[in-house]
Amino acid sequence: MIKKILIANRGEIALRVIRACREMGIGSVAVYSQADVDSMHVKLADEAYCVGKPRSSDSYLKIDQIIAAAEVAGVDAIHPGYGFLAENAHFNEVCRSSGFEFIGPSPQAMEKLGDKNTARSMAIANKVPVVPGSDGLIDNDADAVEIAKKIGFPVLIKATAGGGGKGMRVAVDEQSLSTALSQARTEAEAAFGNGGVYLERYVGSPRHVEVQVIADSHGNVCHLFERDCSVQRRHQKLIEEAPSPSLPEDRRIEICEAAVRMIRGAEYTNAATVEFIVDTDNNFYFIEVNARIQVEHPVTEMITGIDLIKEQIRVAAGEKLSFRQEDVKCQGAAIECRINAEDPDKNFQPNPGRIEKMFVPGGMGVRFDSHVYAGYTVPPHYDSMIGKLIIHRPTRAEAIATMRRALREMQVEGICTTTSFHDKVLQHPEFLEGRHDTKFVEREFLS
Amino acid sequence: MIKKILIANRGEIALRVIRACREMGIGSVAVYSQADVDSMHVKLADEAYCVGKPRSSDSYLKIDQIIAAAEVAGVDAIHPGYGFLAENAHFNEVCRSSGFEFIGPSPQAMEKLGDKNTARSMAIANKVPVVPGSDGLIDNDADAVEIAKKIGFPVLIKATAGGGGKGMRVAVDEQSLSTALSQARTEAEAAFGNGGVYLERYVGSPRHVEVQVIADSHGNVCHLFERDCSVQRRHQKLIEEAPSPSLPEDRRIEICEAAVRMIRGAEYTNAATVEFIVDTDNNFYFIEVNARIQVEHPVTEMITGIDLIKEQIRVAAGEKLSFRQEDVKCQGAAIECRINAEDPDKNFQPNPGRIEKMFVPGGMGVRFDSHVYAGYTVPPHYDSMIGKLIIHRPTRAEAIATMRRALREMQVEGICTTTSFHDKVLQHPEFLEGRHDTKFVEREFLS
Repeated sequence: MIKKILIANRGEIALRVIRACREMGIGSVAVYSQADVDSMHVKLADEAYCVGKPRSSDSYLKIDQIIAAAEVAGVDAIHPGYGFLAENAHFNEVCRSSGFEFIGPSPQAMEKLGDKNTARSMAIANKVPVVPGSDGLIDNDADAVEIAKKIGFPVLIKATAGGGGKGMRVAVDEQSLSTALSQARTEAEAAFGNGGVYLERYVGSPRHVEVQVIADSHGNVCHLFERDCSVQRRHQKLIEEAPSPSLPEDRRIEICEAAVRMIRGAEYTNAATVEFIVDTDNNFYFIEVNARIQVEHPVTEMITGIDLIKEQIRVAAGEKLSFRQEDVKCQGAAIECRINAEDPDKNFQPNPGRIEKMFVPGGMGVRFDSHVYAGYTVPPHYDSMIGKLIIHRPTRAEAIATMRRALREMQVEGICTTTSFHDKVLQHPEFLEGRHDTKFVEREFLS
Repeated sequence: MIKKILIANRGEIALRVIRACREMGIGSVAVYSQADVDSMHVKLADEAYCVGKPRSSDSYLKIDQIIAAAEVAGVDAIHPGYGFLAENAHFNEVCRSSGFEFIGPSPQAMEKLGDKNTARSMAIANKVPVVPGSDGLIDNDADAVEIAKKIGFPVLIKATAGGGGKGMRVAVDEQSLSTALSQARTEAEAAFGNGGVYLERYVGSPRHVEVQVIADSHGNVCHLFERDCSVQRRHQKLIEEAPSPSLPEDRRIEICEAAVRMIRGAEYTNAATVEFIVDTDNNFYFIEVNARIQVEHPVTEMITGIDLIKEQIRVAAGEKLSFRQEDVKCQGAAIECRINAEDPDKNFQPNPGRIEKMFVPGGMGVRFDSHVYAGYTVPPHYDSMIGKLIIHRPTRAEAIATMRRALREMQVEGICTTTSFHDKVLQHPEFLEGRHDTKFVEREFLS
């Protein structure tokens, strides 16, 4: 039995967990930095403890302070939310060794899935498609040509130590491969001190589709269908929806089943998201597992009616899932727009500050998850998201119409927000037809 | 085709209609009194016209001013909302003769149903149960005894010219009937100059159950199930829910079918509510028809997924209903708490004034329909309702838990509201067990 939970997070996700606790009759304990005294997650928790200075490294990432708060408050469990320490296997371990249930997977499962190579191997072992590649480093140009021919041009050359696009090149044919290889090696050597590169099939116009999965400790693993998160700016999701507007039904079943195989194979418990890219022929390829609740979980809650945070808490308490796979039905369409305190006209520059006036949209099919209000000052220290506007309607077209209505209704005066940008996306023919890929925003709006 | 609608109302219902217009691509025109310049219904309409001074009789009831605004704006139709002119057959007539579609029934249907005696006769003609009574005035005590024996004691003696409880008496047996009759006659004569009285069966512990019906001009009449509105204070509804927590399934079907017969028999189009009282044996008796949309319509929208305002607009435009009876499904449970600017500790005295701070609850299953915000001043001239908090969850118990969570989350500083009162009701065993009747609030909370 879990009677009291500490939420090791801030803002809307902390408030989201507090809401679930309250409805379940579980006590809630907030932690906060000095910059977050006025956040609603602090005001609405049963108890709240200051864990340090504004910078996350001095507060929300301070494991010892968070554990101390948990001990003083006498909680049974800790919910990590998303971001901060949510996928930190060490924190997970410390929670457990300090006697607190960690509301998430085991540290072992978290660690294995956190390593991209291990995760890829686990995907292959569980017959989950991965992007075809060299499965190891490229030793010489002749091997590269052979492998590239096998996986098919164009190929992507990636640095094994890479990140942020460094040491990455596309080769469209045999002729360009050798030059691209040496450029990638030189760049990787300079950037990471490691010139090792490998090959992957280049997926030209990828969509981002992810599957929500949840598993209990009794061997039950269920998916809750997929989300399409192809509206991204520099790998940051901006709009998420469920179901995917482009995936044919047979592929939808396949991708959901693949995600379940992956999570079952990893002996994973609690909520997870299995992320895929989908190419123009609707082939899907595993990217990674997010071993935590995600920002965009509400769209899944809306189409299934299942409260994911409550389910996470039940599973962490050792209970069985409250539903079986055959009970999970997809009803209607849900869309989420992340409302960020950013200026879309100034390259999405963060725009913290005091909210002078605010009107929250209401009406049928509208959900707004947020910790902010008129008079609240958005601090400059954290992520710029101030709320999530979520719409659930019988059809995607109706959800888009309601979202546009709600975006227009939403008033946040004093700071810039991304509402006007969202409204433009929601009118774009590519989005309306569900043809958009992950490069859509950069191509159409940021040139 | 309707392209532009004037909303002859204010506050949340005006905003509700604007929302529907926006989602349907229909232009919206607000009218407002001088006291309502800052209301969100004015800010969010496409156009807005001031129709007079703060008092309703100088603005929202000024038919000529409203028609003038409709002419200037060039609308096709007028939505009356609820209250004000919504059930005024003359206004309905004037709208139509001025060339505007009235979004509601014909003036003839409105007039017939607005007369209680005619409505009762129509109910009887359509085999809709009414409270058994003398069906005419009582001439002498001997007749009264015969009739009372036939309908069964206790009986209610009511003044034909009556209202407000004047000239009303309960007689429990033959002995007390004669005294009660003469008292009632004397009181009615003094109060109304008309001593005529009639008899009705006394329904001791009535619940208020009403059925939402909507009819198009093509002969389609559908019900959208019932609402239970037994939580009342002096005939003012405070909490409404769907489905009714106490009605057995067979009675539920019967009451819905009776409501459909009533509306079909009245040759009525557009939305209507057929109101009943239900006794402790689950017998139901017709009270009246509300020939308009009602405050509590959102609970029906939540359980059916049908947008009633959009459907009203479609029907007024001559379209068929967008669903058939067999498509209407009841899913989960919905509850609405009316948030009033009143002081529950001072006998619900209105408490208008400036809202200094406000936090609107969010999360799963929460809908808040309101026109107010931090910085807005609730004017003293109108109804004290500032918003409707509506919860939709898979079960009634979950809806109650979420409502209590959301009530606690709702922050309105600067004025008193009824949130604390609602929280007490939601914890009361009679309410939790669905055993409460229309006298529950007065009996348990206002002694």
